[in-house]
Amino acid sequence: MPHYTAKVYVTLKPSILDPQGRTVERALSHLEHDNVSGVRIGKYIELSLQGEHAEVEAQLKDIVGNVLSNPIMEDARWELTEA
Amino acid sequence: MPHYTAKVYVTLKPSILDPQGRTVERALSHLEHDNVSGVRIGKYIELSLQGEHAEVEAQLKDIVGNVLSNPIMEDARWELTEA
Repeated sequence: MPHYTAKVYVTLKPSILDPQGRTVERALSHLEHDNVSGVRIGKYIELSLQGEHAEVEAQLKDIVGNVLSNPIMEDARWELTEA
Repeated sequence: MPHYTAKVYVTLKPSILDPQGRTVERALSHLEHDNVSGVRIGKYIELSLQGEHAEVEAQLKDIVGNVLSNPIMEDARWELTEA
């Protein structure tokens, strides 16, 4: 059965405050990087899946929406490539 | 002065154990996703920078290596696009 590699990007929705990002931004401005703004911190997840393409795609959608992200607060997108 | 958007991907080096990824993998296998392996969890960071391209590029390299990632344990790559 074919192997696939998935790359998943999870970001906070634009309307959700990102205190971790704000903290990084403040730290950077103290380090004289005061031209930096809009720091947003998300997750980048890699995983491998084995199976037929259509099944793996449906499975990945399920995993991303139900395990890897919280659709109330986060947006998620992914790329699936044959390994 | 031009504005740039940077996307930064920080991943654990392949030789470093990823307990968070292992935990997700075990949770998935209990949810009957037992064809999933190699879960690795990294960070995805977006930020905006203002300035000339060459300066912003040098600055971003410094920020990524010294603030956003730990080069001992993590690999980092980034994309810089004009906003």
